[in-house]
Formats: sequence, C-alpha cells, structure tokens
Amino acid sequence: MRVARVVGQVVSTAKPASIAGRTILLVHDLDPAAPERVVGTPYAVVDLVGAGRGEVVLVAAGSAARVDEELASAPVDAAVIGIIDSLIVENEVTYDK
Amino acid sequence: MRVARVVGQVVSTAKPASIAGRTILLVHDLDPAAPERVVGTPYAVVDLVGAGRGEVVLVAAGSAARVDEELASAPVDAAVIGIIDSLIVENEVTYDK
Amino acid sequence: MRVARVVGQVVSTAKPASIAGRTILLVHDLDPAAPERVVGTPYAVVDLVGAGRGEVVLVAAGSAARVDEELASAPVDAAVIGIIDSLIVENEVTYDK
Amino acid sequence: MRVARVVGQVVSTAKPASIAGRTILLVHDLDPAAPERVVGTPYAVVDLVGAGRGEVVLVAAGSAARVDEELASAPVDAAVIGIIDSLIVENEVTYDK
Amino acid sequence: MRVARVVGQVVSTAKPASIAGRTILLVHDLDPAAPERVVGTPYAVVDLVGAGRGEVVLVAAGSAARVDEELASAPVDAAVIGIIDSLIVENEVTYDK
Repeated sequence: MRVARVVGQVVSTAKPASIAGRTILLVHDLDPAAPERVVGTPYAVVDLVGAGRGEVVLVAAGSAARVDEELASAPVDAAVIGIIDSLIVENEVTYDK
Repeated sequence: MRVARVVGQVVSTAKPASIAGRTILLVHDLDPAAPERVVGTPYAVVDLVGAGRGEVVLVAAGSAARVDEELASAPVDAAVIGIIDSLIVENEVTYDK
Repeated sequence: MRVARVVGQVVSTAKPASIAGRTILLVHDLDPAAPERVVGTPYAVVDLVGAGRGEVVLVAAGSAARVDEELASAPVDAAVIGIIDSLIVENEVTYDK
Repeated sequence: MRVARVVGQVVSTAKPASIAGRTILLVHDLDPAAPERVVGTPYAVVDLVGAGRGEVVLVAAGSAARVDEELASAPVDAAVIGIIDSLIVENEVTYDK
Repeated sequence: MRVARVVGQVVSTAKPASIAGRTILLVHDLDPAAPERVVGTPYAVVDLVGAGRGEVVLVAAGSAARVDEELASAPVDAAVIGIIDSLIVENEVTYDK
C-alpha cells in the first residue's frame, strides 16, 4: 500500500452514481523514511475513512480499492483505507500524528 | 484515479464488438497542483461520460474500467469515469471548469 | 489502453497450450502526439486481431487481456485489441494508416 | 514478486476491521544482484509470515495479496508472503540470512 | 508480457504451502531489440515451465500469473510462462536460443 498525505479534493458532479456521495480526495505519496519528501504527482482516491487535509494516510490501489461491498461496482482504482498515527523506520519515529 | 485532460481521439474500425459503439479518447495526465503541467505520454481510454476535448477528467485504470455491466467483457483497461468541475490543492483552487 | 507499433514477434515452442495457436507479437509504445517517438522498451503481447509489423495498434494490459472467453484461462497480461486507423491530437491528425 | 527488506512499521488505529489484527510493515525493494542497493521508496505491506526488521522478504503485489481467505475482503494490495533465506544470482550467493 | 533472462534463484523455506514445491526464479527484463541490454532490477517469479539460468523467457505479471488451477490460491504476481526460442525485431533475429 502507498503512504501519502491528503493535499486536496476533486469536485466532479458528472461522475458515476456508485460514488455520488463519496468524497474524492487528492493525495501525494511521500517517503516514509523522510515524510517531508513527496514522490511523483498527486492523484485522486475515494475516501473510505473521512481523512482530512494534511493527514498521512494508507492508500490501497487496484481492485483492492473495491473490496468494500458498497464499492464493488464502482469504477475506482485507489482508496484511502486508513489514517496513519505514526511511521517507524529503522527504529526511528519518522512521523507522529 | 488519474487526473487527465482530453487531448484527442483514436479512430479504429478493427476493434472488438464490445466497444464498437464507444468513443476511444486520448488523454494526457496532468499535475493537479499545476494543471498546465502534463505528465508522461498520452494514452487511450474508453469514454463513459461523453467528455470533450480540453476537459479535465477522472480516469480509472485496470479492472475498475470494466465494472460497468456493458463493459464487463470488453478488453479495456482505462476509462473516463467523470468530468472534473474543480481541483482544490492546499486550499487553493488550481482548476475551475 | 496503450498505443503501440508492432515491431516484431516472439517464437516460443515451450508455452502454455492455452496460447499454443496464438501469435505473440513484440510491440513498442509510441507517443500519439508524435508517433515517430517510441516510449520505453518493446514487450510481448498476444495478438487478437491479426496485426502486421509496422501497424499502429491498441493494447489492453492486465486482466483486460483475458476477457475473451478463449483466453480466460491463458496466462497473458497484454493483448492487441484493435488496429488503429488514425490518431487525432489537438485537432491534428498525427497518424493515418 | 518483489524482493525487499523490512525497514519499519506503520501504526494506524483508524483502519478497516479486516486488517485490524494485522501488522502493517514498511519494506524497501532491493536489487537481488546487490542487496545493499535499495530501489525506489519504502511502501506499506500486510505481514503474512511474521517478518522482522532487517529481514529480506518476498512481496506479492496486487490481487495476489488477497488470495488468503482471511484477506479476501481486505483492502490490501501488497503482502509479505515469504522470508528469504538466500539469493543466488549468476551462480553467486548475493545474500544469505 | 515481459521478455526476461533467468539470472538466479530465491531460496525461501518460510513461504506459503501453495508454492512450497515450486521454484522461485530471479529474472531480469531485457530489451528484445538488443537482448544484451537489461532493463530495471531483477525480480522474483514462480517457474511454470522449468526454465534454466541464462534462458530467455516470457513472464506474465498480475493475476495472469495465477490462471493455472494449481496456483489459483497462491500469492504470486509473476510467473515464467514460456521459454523463448527466438526474437525477431524489424525482420531481424535479435536472439536465437
């Protein structure tokens, strides 16, 4: 799973009914060893846990994003599945909420 | 999901019956934080929402592109699933339709 | 889906029965905006449409390559699903067969 | 599958019930030919074998991470599926536990 | 599918029963147009055809690696599915076994 920070949101009225009530967040992957370092480009995810901007989250990609029954027939390929409290790398806490 | 701009279209008569009536668009990923910045190379997607050239769209990749019953047996791995009205990054509106 | 040019072929006698009679092509992704520009490295695909060398084709990757009943139990992760007649990018025909 | 070293752990209380009791590790891909060389950025995986920090492991990505019945409905896209005893590249043992 | 050369092997006793009897090879992708040129980093694959070190093989990734009934519930995301006899690129034989 990817470790990312919530950086914003997508507003889209013309989207499938299966995700009509869902928030589509923008997240940016970060390096768990140095969380101030972002990686790649922000991308869109469906929010399954109510994450807020700035929070560090766990993102599942691919069919993993649709294992929740309510999303089984939703055209989503990435979802926020958890809010991260802390990251520990080589015995060092690199991030604490 | 990927955030991209519709840049063109693919014309292909020799394609599977399951997507015969569908428009195959060309889209180019962009950076939601700086939408004038494109990322990677344009690629082909099946259009599920009737998006027009220049519009910023939400693209689902992999098996997510085939959750729609009509596409369940179509050999597609990417689909436009929504038209984006606006993008908000770090509380700033970076794109507004 | 990816836009690629057929550049060659793989000859493999020791391969699964499920693809015994199938041609395995080598294709090279190209930039639809500038089709003379290739991207990445050539890779192998099963041919579903009888494409010839030099033709520009539509490639579906992942489980999309196995939606055809005959390939449902074939270990393939990429297939040529269409032959492209023309590519239009920003209202300009960048490729015509 | 990917060859990686366990470098740390993710602590996340707000995560799906389906992975509540599971350890989420942080791993960093390495080059089997030169295991001291890491590749890319660390990422999160669910631990299926009880791997410890510093151990070299086998990681399965995508739907492969959910073939275990207990994880069939868990939103995970990467899992540690084995602990590696040794790596042999071009007849040379490049890593031995 | 990817074109790769078998470069070694992974020894792992602590691995799932579903792949207990299987050989886990290390392969390195190569450029079919110039097979002496390797691409990326070696990675691990389950061997379905009994390939030997140095052989050039066809690798299927993702759920394609598990279409074989015996591997349907194995946590594998890449498999050697064929041994390549020859590669032909732009009418030139770039590799012959």
